Amino acid sequence: MASTLLSERDLQFLLYEWLDAEALTARPRYADHSRETFDGALDLAERVATDHFAPHFKTSDANEPHFDGERVHVIPEVKKALEVYAETGLNSLSMPESVGGAQAPRLISSACNAWFQAANLGTSAYPFLTSGNAALLLAHGSQEQIDTFVRPMVEGRFTGTMCLSEPQAGSSLSDITTRAEPAGDGTYRLFGNKMWISAGDHELTENIVHLVLAKIPGGPAGVKGISLFVVPKHLVNDDGTLGERNDVVPAGLNHKMGYRGTVNALLNFGEGRHTPGGEPGAVGYLVGEAHQGLQYMFHMMNGARIGVGAGAMAVGYTGYLKSLAYARERLQGRPLGAKDPDQPQVPIVEHTDVRRMLLAQKSYVEGALALVLYCARLYDDTLSHEDQAGREHADLLLDALTPIVKSWPSQWCVAANDLAIQIHGGYGYTREYDVEQHYRDNRLNPIHEGTHGIQALDLLGRKAVLDGGKRLGLLVEAARTAVERARALGGAEAAYADLLDAALTRTTETAAAAWSEGDPAVALANATPYLEAVGHVVIAWMWLEQVVTAHGREGAFYDGKRAAAAYFFHHELPRTGPQFDLVASRDRTVLDVSPDAL
Amino acid sequence: MASTLLSERDLQFLLYEWLDAEALTARPRYADHSRETFDGALDLAERVATDHFAPHFKTSDANEPHFDGERVHVIPEVKKALEVYAETGLNSLSMPESVGGAQAPRLISSACNAWFQAANLGTSAYPFLTSGNAALLLAHGSQEQIDTFVRPMVEGRFTGTMCLSEPQAGSSLSDITTRAEPAGDGTYRLFGNKMWISAGDHELTENIVHLVLAKIPGGPAGVKGISLFVVPKHLVNDDGTLGERNDVVPAGLNHKMGYRGTVNALLNFGEGRHTPGGEPGAVGYLVGEAHQGLQYMFHMMNGARIGVGAGAMAVGYTGYLKSLAYARERLQGRPLGAKDPDQPQVPIVEHTDVRRMLLAQKSYVEGALALVLYCARLYDDTLSHEDQAGREHADLLLDALTPIVKSWPSQWCVAANDLAIQIHGGYGYTREYDVEQHYRDNRLNPIHEGTHGIQALDLLGRKAVLDGGKRLGLLVEAARTAVERARALGGAEAAYADLLDAALTRTTETAAAAWSEGDPAVALANATPYLEAVGHVVIAWMWLEQVVTAHGREGAFYDGKRAAAAYFFHHELPRTGPQFDLVASRDRTVLDVSPDAL
Repeated sequence: MASTLLSERDLQFLLYEWLDAEALTARPRYADHSRETFDGALDLAERVATDHFAPHFKTSDANEPHFDGERVHVIPEVKKALEVYAETGLNSLSMPESVGGAQAPRLISSACNAWFQAANLGTSAYPFLTSGNAALLLAHGSQEQIDTFVRPMVEGRFTGTMCLSEPQAGSSLSDITTRAEPAGDGTYRLFGNKMWISAGDHELTENIVHLVLAKIPGGPAGVKGISLFVVPKHLVNDDGTLGERNDVVPAGLNHKMGYRGTVNALLNFGEGRHTPGGEPGAVGYLVGEAHQGLQYMFHMMNGARIGVGAGAMAVGYTGYLKSLAYARERLQGRPLGAKDPDQPQVPIVEHTDVRRMLLAQKSYVEGALALVLYCARLYDDTLSHEDQAGREHADLLLDALTPIVKSWPSQWCVAANDLAIQIHGGYGYTREYDVEQHYRDNRLNPIHEGTHGIQALDLLGRKAVLDGGKRLGLLVEAARTAVERARALGGAEAAYADLLDAALTRTTETAAAAWSEGDPAVALANATPYLEAVGHVVIAWMWLEQVVTAHGREGAFYDGKRAAAAYFFHHELPRTGPQFDLVASRDRTVLDVSPDAL
Repeated sequence: MASTLLSERDLQFLLYEWLDAEALTARPRYADHSRETFDGALDLAERVATDHFAPHFKTSDANEPHFDGERVHVIPEVKKALEVYAETGLNSLSMPESVGGAQAPRLISSACNAWFQAANLGTSAYPFLTSGNAALLLAHGSQEQIDTFVRPMVEGRFTGTMCLSEPQAGSSLSDITTRAEPAGDGTYRLFGNKMWISAGDHELTENIVHLVLAKIPGGPAGVKGISLFVVPKHLVNDDGTLGERNDVVPAGLNHKMGYRGTVNALLNFGEGRHTPGGEPGAVGYLVGEAHQGLQYMFHMMNGARIGVGAGAMAVGYTGYLKSLAYARERLQGRPLGAKDPDQPQVPIVEHTDVRRMLLAQKSYVEGALALVLYCARLYDDTLSHEDQAGREHADLLLDALTPIVKSWPSQWCVAANDLAIQIHGGYGYTREYDVEQHYRDNRLNPIHEGTHGIQALDLLGRKAVLDGGKRLGLLVEAARTAVERARALGGAEAAYADLLDAALTRTTETAAAAWSEGDPAVALANATPYLEAVGHVVIAWMWLEQVVTAHGREGAFYDGKRAAAAYFFHHELPRTGPQFDLVASRDRTVLDVSPDAL
């Protein structure tokens, strides 16, 4: 029986028929790889996700982590799953060989990761945060920091976190107050409280490597005074063994609506519970230069944003497959007009409105998967493209797409989960079925790693205008290459190409109209409808890419691609018309309303 | 401090400034009432809801009902709340005086009910199901059934349920298999299983009155063979005291994502646990005529559908007010362009995108409240309008609006709850705040009492076409009276009137276009987008009514009404354009897709 986590067939189509993953093996960076190593990793990921991550999906929701005032307890299945995962080497699949990784393309590791996110979003967060942490240290840490902290993370012995928010400073990082005082020996002592720390405390691994934003007293005010520190839970001796307990301790856990398998902690730094070396404060090691912390953290943050979109997609995808399986099995009612009650009931997939809900989900989740993989492919280009211009082009295009790949799946794959519940009827609303948990788990994604509204400001306030709108221009240009390929095919593909072409024109014209008064308050008043419209345009582009790839190929799989594309172009893309109209009109309704009138 | 459950000021505006509730007191049916009795009931409802329902809102979510194999346990706060509620007489506020009710307009009791639904949707379900049950028996039961079962329900001693679904028959009631065998003495014995029974078993009251759909052997097949029975949990002696235990027993409870305070049970009838009178089967009393059960049940169902919409609205409303209060208190960030980190942080209501999310919510929940009260006013007209034509007009218009008032709040007030979470950021995703529970509770509403898709078939398949489209025509005609009033005012109101007028034209034209091939499969293939578009048109109408009422009045309250109307006309109504286009084009995408291609 086919998996209800993801579709192997769809992955093969996207990786090999569309994105030509094999071509990457011609590049020096990936020279040790081949179609066989790729498929081996994908098969392994499916197997481990199915056998070790999926089985405790509901268990870790029903038995969320708890804090006894001293220690954080997590169900044992999580530790076991992470051990198996690390043993397979999948956790370092795309890490460089220099630290023990397999140096596979991100395109392949992203596809592998999706199996784990679909199987168990909560458990997968531990290793995925860890690889983001390791990637940051690889880019900006010292060799000693890499040896001390990254290697054990690659081996699966340590996990990593990112500690940005504080109770008074969530989206507004300039207001953090955690301070890092120089200890005189090149190290620092940190004092402060961090909030919303995923994987912030647990005993799943020997040690936890916190990457912490803090301010060195006397530095510049605001974001320019933020530095980045490594703060391990346990100090690490020179020989790599664990040393003293550092003074970073959990002060409590957050109890969430979903995503419960992942510990989410309030952490106190330097509260005095421990005194490493006999001194107060949590020992921290400066990463890179002082006051450059936010810039370094954004390195991780951009990766995390793509990861959030990928997770949202994966949860949407499995919800789709589960509701499809249910719709094919569940008997209920008869076709319209067939009122003879002696006729047997039919599977609900026979009801048009159920097919509508399936096709909508399919268009959302397969469109999102295409975008996630497209972005991963761009990331690989930034590392491995033959020429400098190609690397820069990929970097800028990925920069333009980052707010979309973060926000679009976070919105529409929750919508997919909503439809998956609806297809299940009352059953879908019970905890006996998986879909209600997917809906709850997925609802975090528009919040963390930059809220939906912040992605909108990033797109219309930065990506659409920086360097004369170069980034957005590259996005439109890339989509237009698909328009040209589709036009050449004629038929439905050409019709879609015309629709997309018009929407791309509106994408740039609307950004210009929004900014035509030159006033950021006016331009950005409707940034969110703009983000949502451009998101739909980008997914329409992903669907055009897919039908072009499927052109001339026969069979149910390709017919499904064509049907989902038809759904997206007929039912979804037209939504963008009124959104672009609104933004282009510089509508002032939300800008002008007085808070007192609310 | 103003309540965060509902807005008293808004209720006063809608009831007295718009719907002229006082005018009802001139009608014989409501002659005992006055503005004072109305306001007294509203104040009492607010107080009891605030003091006795709201405090255990989260407790009953965290401690859902459980079944020990014998008995169903519900936290004691629920029983206490229901006792207080019954003591106040609010449970029979709009019931006829003949059975001990206060015979107030439904308009007033609906407003009162909203306080309870906002305070605690789960607890409020017990009395609200009971009044629906009582209303059905009052309309179709015998005098003996009314005396035996309705009076104790009015007194709060018994509660009621409706038992329709079975494991193999949810939306498809023609497939129920519960059978009712004549016992020879005019009573029946029932055998079968019922599923999804809200308030299906508990010990909150002395007795439970189940209204059960079953088939009498030998009757017609399908829905034409369905009869309705009263099946009490305990038989009732002639003197009103409780007699033997009837053979209706819980077989298990459903564990839901939300709405957990309301028991939801699988009930077995006649499984043999009890043998009342020494005979097998659950004793049932036929209501009205044999084989007319579905028609009677629809009497209750239509009321239940309006109640579902009202509940969805109330949960949306309180989420709005809670997120508004949070947005006014929570300090975070600085206005756009004010980057000086030494400036103090501002309340997040100062951020435009937060105001967007508040205004969106406001437009949804206040629009939904207006519709709920408008429908209640129509219901009162069906009972009390001076002339027969007026009563019939109200009945048909209410019939047209029923799928809208059920489905629109069930969709958009969940969307409001989603925005309420988003405004709270990470906090909104935790169980420390209320909004995540509202989101979970509210998600049931598009499922029960006829799914969203079934409402769509009802609107486009019945209400738009029966009697030459008379019902939909009356809806459009009623909305056009508001268009005329608004046009006469000029300014923004006249501009909105033009927009609504055009949308009303599309409402009828699109229904005609959908049906132009005469093929139900084609016409109804896009019934759901049609439902959603017409829902938005109806809410735009409700906003036009409100700004017309607010015309010329000054102050923050009226400015708020104007701002929310502007939001709805600028940001929301335009969504309907592409939806109408799609339906009118008789798009076949979802009709034609093969299940194999999904």
